[in-house]
Amino acid sequence: MTIDEDRTNFSPDTVVVSIDAMGGDSGVEAIIGGMEISAKVNPDIYFIVHGDSAQINALLRNKPELASRVDVRHAEKVISMDEKPSRALRGGKGSSMWNALQSVEKGEAAVAVSCGNTGALMAIAMLRLRKLPGVNRPAIAALWPSRNPSGYNVMLDMGADLKADAQDLLQYAIMGASYARNGLGLEMPRVGLLNIGTEDHKGRPELKEAAKLIETSQESYGIDYIGFVEGSDLPSKRVDIIVTDGFTGNVALKASEGTAKLFGEFLRDAFTHTPMAKVAAIFASASLKRLKDRVDPRHVNGGVFLGLNGTVIKSHGSADAISVSAAIKLAFTLAQSGFSEKLAARIASAAAVTKNSTSETDEA
Amino acid sequence: MTIDEDRTNFSPDTVVVSIDAMGGDSGVEAIIGGMEISAKVNPDIYFIVHGDSAQINALLRNKPELASRVDVRHAEKVISMDEKPSRALRGGKGSSMWNALQSVEKGEAAVAVSCGNTGALMAIAMLRLRKLPGVNRPAIAALWPSRNPSGYNVMLDMGADLKADAQDLLQYAIMGASYARNGLGLEMPRVGLLNIGTEDHKGRPELKEAAKLIETSQESYGIDYIGFVEGSDLPSKRVDIIVTDGFTGNVALKASEGTAKLFGEFLRDAFTHTPMAKVAAIFASASLKRLKDRVDPRHVNGGVFLGLNGTVIKSHGSADAISVSAAIKLAFTLAQSGFSEKLAARIASAAAVTKNSTSETDEA
Repeated sequence: MTIDEDRTNFSPDTVVVSIDAMGGDSGVEAIIGGMEISAKVNPDIYFIVHGDSAQINALLRNKPELASRVDVRHAEKVISMDEKPSRALRGGKGSSMWNALQSVEKGEAAVAVSCGNTGALMAIAMLRLRKLPGVNRPAIAALWPSRNPSGYNVMLDMGADLKADAQDLLQYAIMGASYARNGLGLEMPRVGLLNIGTEDHKGRPELKEAAKLIETSQESYGIDYIGFVEGSDLPSKRVDIIVTDGFTGNVALKASEGTAKLFGEFLRDAFTHTPMAKVAAIFASASLKRLKDRVDPRHVNGGVFLGLNGTVIKSHGSADAISVSAAIKLAFTLAQSGFSEKLAARIASAAAVTKNSTSETDEA
Repeated sequence: MTIDEDRTNFSPDTVVVSIDAMGGDSGVEAIIGGMEISAKVNPDIYFIVHGDSAQINALLRNKPELASRVDVRHAEKVISMDEKPSRALRGGKGSSMWNALQSVEKGEAAVAVSCGNTGALMAIAMLRLRKLPGVNRPAIAALWPSRNPSGYNVMLDMGADLKADAQDLLQYAIMGASYARNGLGLEMPRVGLLNIGTEDHKGRPELKEAAKLIETSQESYGIDYIGFVEGSDLPSKRVDIIVTDGFTGNVALKASEGTAKLFGEFLRDAFTHTPMAKVAAIFASASLKRLKDRVDPRHVNGGVFLGLNGTVIKSHGSADAISVSAAIKLAFTLAQSGFSEKLAARIASAAAVTKNSTSETDEA
């Protein structure tokens, strides 16, 4: 019996997550492993899994509990990690990624998760799910460890597009705020625009223009605009959402990840370079574990595609089972909060506000 | 007796460093403290110090050893940290920053160091020292901890300018390579262009154009061009110099610094949150100190202004004595290697190469 046939018995809390099992560098094992972790702690989660059914079924054979909540859909094709988005669009039909997104398009799943090629995933998602009316450029939002009570800040765009004009940055602010409201439970998220200084006269022209746009309309969008922020504010507690273009956001996030990784190596080295240090590491093991858990990037895995008709989560390509389960948890949380519908409503009302303010200007 | 009068007795290894004592958030004490640290370990260093002579002389009173190598020049004015560059240009004459740069202009000092306002320092440096013939946009280069044998990578531009076209990025590559040759002792520095992916088709048009420019001319500039690099490569050992525009560079560096700081806090917290953790910290103290020394940003303090007739080091505004002495050490190393003259020669020959290749194209 597939979960499809069983759908009538679902509780209202049930969320069906569509999974691309073939993307990613760690293979199908990591995906199924992540699903198993999520299914164990969350009885309301069901899966439609797209990919090589022989591989998937072999992995499910010894997991009857998980298997009973999984609908396996065979897909012949796999989109490789280095495929150009344009080629993926032309030849991707019937691939596990394409079909995973189609499950959201058809409404049989609330949200899709893939560890595959980001560019291809965004291109196919735009084709299949289409942009929300009023959205010019969809964006990818990521969580980043911060000093805030939630432990995270939201940053967007992480690389859906290379550039963003003032109007795009305003939409990122609105979409990021909607994500923070539904994903992190923040009522009135604080938004900052990423710049190379906090003074009003700093930065590129589109940033100054975006600052004015967001500032004048913040109330109608349920945003608390705090002004320009700098790279050092990525982990800051004075902001919840950091808005920037996809080029800058991608570089900033990867630079921060790279730094975190280097420091992890230095830390390991500091506790292994002498026999005495190794003894110290034993005494310090609880402290080191506490640190490791706080900075483990696997716990914050999942870029969310914003601005489409439906929610898509891009998990890290190198994701292991723990990372995949973090992405699934995020997918579940957003789906259950009705994020997709709320974001669409927010964008529609934003478009109305813009239209009104434009016509007011016209009349003035 | 001032060092000026004594100049005839200087050894050929002597370097005179011009210091702006009034910039920075930590006051004159940090500057004089940094000079004292540097003077102790380096007998070849002399200073011309610009600022409030009463304050400076009071601090030098109990340091006769340092005082004998310092020439104090009184300056009435101080340029504040939030002064707009345009205002600093108009009203900055006679300030400690202005006069510190003028000492380099006059040739009485080989290099200038300031902890003050970056924008003002660059604006006044461009006015007083002027751009090297052939340089369109000067740049600020910074060192960043890496897995390379030297322990550092060079990154530029860190925010001298908001944007850079392909020709600017080529000049950054040449200037960064010259800096790495003289500052880090690398014969044939490896240069990477910062992008959001390493594939050739990724990124903005000016990056693709710059990639072609650098690739075709790398041999004549003594550069090993390795292609596009990503934010995660900031600490990488596959590259020595990371070239990017000033907006992206500034955000990436500050984001990385912010991450490093957050992890430092998490580390402290991990070793203080319980009595047991505090005991562990005692056993781990040697390891923790080793880690701290490796990641201490105070040891890599100093952005170098490249592309001017003369070398200027911008130290962190919040620099303490250790940071200031790191900036002075960098100033000394670059001055003693004849960096400024070598860079000028390199740029001149690059201009000739460009001119030749252009005229060749014209003839073709």
